[in-house]
Amino acid sequence: MAKELKQLTKRADNYSQWYNDLVYKADLAEQSAVRGCMVIKPYGYAIWEKIQHELDSEFKKLGVQNAYFPLLIPKSFFAREAEHVKGFAKEAAVVTHYRLRTSADGKDIEVDPTAKLDEELIIRPTSETIIWNTYKNWIHSWRDLPLKCNQWCNVMRWEMRTRPFLRTSEFLWQEGHTAHATREEAEAMAQQMLHVYANFVENFMAVPVVQGVKSETERFAGALNTYTIEAMMQDGKALQSGTSHFLGQNFAKSFDVTFLNKENKPEYVWATSWGVSTRLMGALIMVHSDDNGLVLPPKLAPIQVVIVPIAKKGEDLQQITDKFTPVINALQQKGISVKYDDADNKRPGFKFADYELKGVPVRLVMGSKDYANNTVEVMRRDTLEKETVPFDGIEDYVEKLLGDIQTSIYQKAKNFLTSHIYECDNYDEFKEKIKDGGFFLCHWDGTPETEARIKEETQATIRCVPFDFEQTEGVDMVSGKPAHQRVIIARSY
Amino acid sequence: MAKELKQLTKRADNYSQWYNDLVYKADLAEQSAVRGCMVIKPYGYAIWEKIQHELDSEFKKLGVQNAYFPLLIPKSFFAREAEHVKGFAKEAAVVTHYRLRTSADGKDIEVDPTAKLDEELIIRPTSETIIWNTYKNWIHSWRDLPLKCNQWCNVMRWEMRTRPFLRTSEFLWQEGHTAHATREEAEAMAQQMLHVYANFVENFMAVPVVQGVKSETERFAGALNTYTIEAMMQDGKALQSGTSHFLGQNFAKSFDVTFLNKENKPEYVWATSWGVSTRLMGALIMVHSDDNGLVLPPKLAPIQVVIVPIAKKGEDLQQITDKFTPVINALQQKGISVKYDDADNKRPGFKFADYELKGVPVRLVMGSKDYANNTVEVMRRDTLEKETVPFDGIEDYVEKLLGDIQTSIYQKAKNFLTSHIYECDNYDEFKEKIKDGGFFLCHWDGTPETEARIKEETQATIRCVPFDFEQTEGVDMVSGKPAHQRVIIARSY
Repeated sequence: MAKELKQLTKRADNYSQWYNDLVYKADLAEQSAVRGCMVIKPYGYAIWEKIQHELDSEFKKLGVQNAYFPLLIPKSFFAREAEHVKGFAKEAAVVTHYRLRTSADGKDIEVDPTAKLDEELIIRPTSETIIWNTYKNWIHSWRDLPLKCNQWCNVMRWEMRTRPFLRTSEFLWQEGHTAHATREEAEAMAQQMLHVYANFVENFMAVPVVQGVKSETERFAGALNTYTIEAMMQDGKALQSGTSHFLGQNFAKSFDVTFLNKENKPEYVWATSWGVSTRLMGALIMVHSDDNGLVLPPKLAPIQVVIVPIAKKGEDLQQITDKFTPVINALQQKGISVKYDDADNKRPGFKFADYELKGVPVRLVMGSKDYANNTVEVMRRDTLEKETVPFDGIEDYVEKLLGDIQTSIYQKAKNFLTSHIYECDNYDEFKEKIKDGGFFLCHWDGTPETEARIKEETQATIRCVPFDFEQTEGVDMVSGKPAHQRVIIARSY
Repeated sequence: MAKELKQLTKRADNYSQWYNDLVYKADLAEQSAVRGCMVIKPYGYAIWEKIQHELDSEFKKLGVQNAYFPLLIPKSFFAREAEHVKGFAKEAAVVTHYRLRTSADGKDIEVDPTAKLDEELIIRPTSETIIWNTYKNWIHSWRDLPLKCNQWCNVMRWEMRTRPFLRTSEFLWQEGHTAHATREEAEAMAQQMLHVYANFVENFMAVPVVQGVKSETERFAGALNTYTIEAMMQDGKALQSGTSHFLGQNFAKSFDVTFLNKENKPEYVWATSWGVSTRLMGALIMVHSDDNGLVLPPKLAPIQVVIVPIAKKGEDLQQITDKFTPVINALQQKGISVKYDDADNKRPGFKFADYELKGVPVRLVMGSKDYANNTVEVMRRDTLEKETVPFDGIEDYVEKLLGDIQTSIYQKAKNFLTSHIYECDNYDEFKEKIKDGGFFLCHWDGTPETEARIKEETQATIRCVPFDFEQTEGVDMVSGKPAHQRVIIARSY
């Protein structure tokens, strides 16, 4: 079966189809029997587990504790926060009944109409409402603050058009929800979490990002400020990869969460929430991979090194295996995951193509000639470069190479990002250039009207007001009105 | 707020209320706004994370890979396996709509009647059906077998009477699903997983269990055999703590999953599934704890050692803190989690009661006198025994003590279990004695009729045919018919 799976659509032919092919053929995920819901396959899930592990340990360093809140949220909760309901209570999965029964003809099962819920329950699209309803009982005094909880869970948003990892009805994520005594502390927390995300995405996923703040239109429903990290895919489109929200006192007021301050006076609590999801997998795949398959950053690759012995006779194979045994142990001692593939039912060429498709960062091959010469062939997945190196000390060589690959793919992506950010002051020019993708730094007059017009005419949106670019006064390229800042405009996933 | 929470109901007064109090007051979990769904609080979740971590690493040693399958299952899937539907498709949460809308008066939100699903979706009560529907595409040849996947996820069963951890509508669990080429391999896998569970529960949770096989009546819906571990609570009732099922070819046939064997002929695949859930938390709490609160096994305690300095003056406190700093480092080096509690807003007595309630295994206290004498007061939570020991070498003392406590609470529970297992051959005597709890080893004629009569007349059920007791011929105590085995009968949670 596996052989016909190797043919990936080429990026240049159809970038979108290339992505879909790759997700499926590299065994990352597949469409399930339920519309818009994916199955995350073991190889894909192993990457997600590494993402979880790293982020979770960063959260815990900041005093964040994990907890678990219910999957189902009473419908009325959504109506309490006026903005939130507009954003989240619409395209949602609604539980209306709690029992099935055998049909009258005894052949089928059907919903039992007598088991109708008094109030419908919504499968959480995000958990602010139920968490703040819970925090009400946990927070009484300033001594209970800050309160920092996170949960790793599934959420559901009934998306009409879905793509694996990028946009699915059900997805996995983490959502952090913190409560603070002051506005300043909450704002600082929201920004700190954005930096945690940015550091993780850049250092582990090797994906460079632009950090910034969303326009009012693009804010999380119910937030006063939404911070974002935006990554650039190989087609020049943006992928929002993580967001952190300063929620002000909106949820505290909606759910009546107050605390007694040091002067023993009641005040509303200040809030943040922040999340990243399996969408990160989409960024990981799209930023680095090529027409041969996945390119995985070593820090997140489930298999970092694959060793393929090439020997037909049993005796030769045994010699090579014996030679590699201490190397495998040494690599594992260094915390490097190794697969030794001596399966005899697949040809070396098939194995090579398969590990390339799966994005294993380093491949070691030893045939009889290498064995005789005490050498080994090393291939790095990112550049597909091969070289023959001395066998002695190969474990140190590999360790260093993994580090090099991590740095190198980040730098490649960084160069791509940097060379596709353009300052642009002319709307006609913008409309032409946006077709080829890229991030456009444009002056914006700050009005939702201009934002809406750009979106309608070009399908591009304001991704953020970036932190790291010097802001200058200018003229809005669309309206001609004065503008105090440049924003990043791009088409996006 | 915290002070009034300290009053636990005593076990002797009301065991059931004691449990509910303890779960709530020790900050493990609480009832949510959604009927039957709990919030797992950070302290409770930290224990669950440790359980997950240990089990997950055991699963991976056996070649089990994690994956993720959809939350929602099409209603028709349940109808495919005749037995399975009876057991699982009835008390279920049913998603019928996918959109809400603003009500006509603009004040509320309501279900949009135009957004009705063609086929209702069920929130998974267990995932055999959707997983076997997926495995169909993953399994083609004997080379694809065995296939061993596990997922950590939430599931939902619409329970009418719920209790935190023991029986909740939504709960967290892991469910493993394996596919094998032969009956023997699948049977062996199902049994192996039971042993994995038993070893974990005994060695980490310090909870002794009886391993055995369920009667046909008590089997998982769709299984040919259900293996179980049964733990005994302090009231003598059984708590089923983990199950592993040999599913035969039932699901393979229902979902048409075949493989080509080595002779290139199609055969149906053999299956197992196995799971443990947040129910384990219930066993952990109920087996060890006492009227002062939780008693946690050191291997699963989020905080293993708490250190409380007692000093009023700042200078004295600083001296004690300086003295403990290297000890804290040394303990952490040993992988022991330590909390140093020098908070000045709570009295020592309050802290002591709180850490007892939370089940922290070891408490170290140092006052000025101890400081002068170079000693420290050590209390072990399981026995509440205090002793004053030399400060020097305290880290080794504590390490050994944690090991002792782990062994000691297991042994205590084991003694309790052993002394509450009775051979019984007389039904009148059984009916009398069962009121006080305990596991009864009774001859059973093997008929569901006898089983049903016992259940109706005594609320006790056959927990399992135990593995570790010698089986003897005898006479069924209820029917008087010949019986080939003794089974364990008990009341249960």
